[in-house]
Amino acid sequence: MGISLYELAGAEDERRFSPYCWRIRLALRHKGLPFDGIPWRFTEKDRIAFTGQGKVPVLTDGDRVVVDSWAIAAYLDETYADRPSLLGGPSGKGMARFITDWCDGVVLPAVFRLILADIPRHLHDKDVAYFRTSREQRVGMSLEAFCAERGPRLAEFGKLLAPFRQCLGRQPYLAGDAPAWPDYALQSAFQWARGVSPLHLLETDDPVFDWRERMLDAFDGEGRKALGYPV
Amino acid sequence: MGISLYELAGAEDERRFSPYCWRIRLALRHKGLPFDGIPWRFTEKDRIAFTGQGKVPVLTDGDRVVVDSWAIAAYLDETYADRPSLLGGPSGKGMARFITDWCDGVVLPAVFRLILADIPRHLHDKDVAYFRTSREQRVGMSLEAFCAERGPRLAEFGKLLAPFRQCLGRQPYLAGDAPAWPDYALQSAFQWARGVSPLHLLETDDPVFDWRERMLDAFDGEGRKALGYPV
Repeated sequence: MGISLYELAGAEDERRFSPYCWRIRLALRHKGLPFDGIPWRFTEKDRIAFTGQGKVPVLTDGDRVVVDSWAIAAYLDETYADRPSLLGGPSGKGMARFITDWCDGVVLPAVFRLILADIPRHLHDKDVAYFRTSREQRVGMSLEAFCAERGPRLAEFGKLLAPFRQCLGRQPYLAGDAPAWPDYALQSAFQWARGVSPLHLLETDDPVFDWRERMLDAFDGEGRKALGYPV
Repeated sequence: MGISLYELAGAEDERRFSPYCWRIRLALRHKGLPFDGIPWRFTEKDRIAFTGQGKVPVLTDGDRVVVDSWAIAAYLDETYADRPSLLGGPSGKGMARFITDWCDGVVLPAVFRLILADIPRHLHDKDVAYFRTSREQRVGMSLEAFCAERGPRLAEFGKLLAPFRQCLGRQPYLAGDAPAWPDYALQSAFQWARGVSPLHLLETDDPVFDWRERMLDAFDGEGRKALGYPV
């Protein structure tokens, strides 16, 4: 049966841009587990109805179905415990959870604010109306109004990364000497942006830029080979 | 010889308020290592001249001298590896470093801005002039002007804790099921405030408040018994 990963895709099957799916793609590569990445669109709720919910990532492993990126990461570490750890074992898992909350609560919303208006042009035709309507309802204005004033927001985004920038003065990865789940969670924000937006989020002299280069190169350039914009 | 910890003290020997010293005090309790806490004042540079620098915490362990709170934590984990880990081993250490950078770069500066003006009244007489002059030079204004507008800054401080608040929905401590270094690093910010300022940093219905209660109670109430204000 093997492992399958349902991933959000855009107009092209190859344009995968969901940050929550990206962290699982990188996590599977980290574990060295082969998998099929199955393109899925927002409006194809019926295709994942078997999960009892309507969001990706969805991971199927034989008969097992796991949803929610954190739950999938924990599942992979438990089930494939003989392979390189994602979360750093029991002592690391709590810290990995906090760092994931930092990524999701601080970094992703800032990226969202910068790139949301770029997304519709890369969506599959069948998703465009759903996406615009649901997201404009969520943010309470047009996507274009929401993403105005990019200049100051980009500077603000740079400041939010300050603790990570500081950390990179001591170690090459968020998880230490080698990348692990926290790096994939953070890199997923950049893969998201890269997949849909021409905006350059980082200056080339930023240590975070260098880290992102390493992440784009990881696993035979998994992140860099993906369909998207140059960063 | 045993372990000694030079800690910043205020007017009273018992008023210890440095966040960097507090995290080591809690770390030593975590490791179950007995130690002498030696009160030290800002202007007593000569008393720690043997370290080749002028800041506390300073830890002496027999003939060994270690400075810098992160270096001390790493030293304790390496030297007393058979005792409960602070940093979570090699896989946890990188994540612990990032969380420390988040505490130091995000949380401490926000607390600094709220309580700096409260510090002089709790300093030893010999430290007052040094502290005011050096800090006012650093912030470019009077301490009182620097700490004006506490209301909006307090609200901002609450927002900075959002990722931790989110994390507490899943686990009781920053490090997971039990406290470890990341918790001591964060709690040290609250011990600092508690030692010198009557300001209430957290609302009682905040999950972070409950976490802080647990931290104040830890190790037979080490944090709560210390001289300071009720929180």
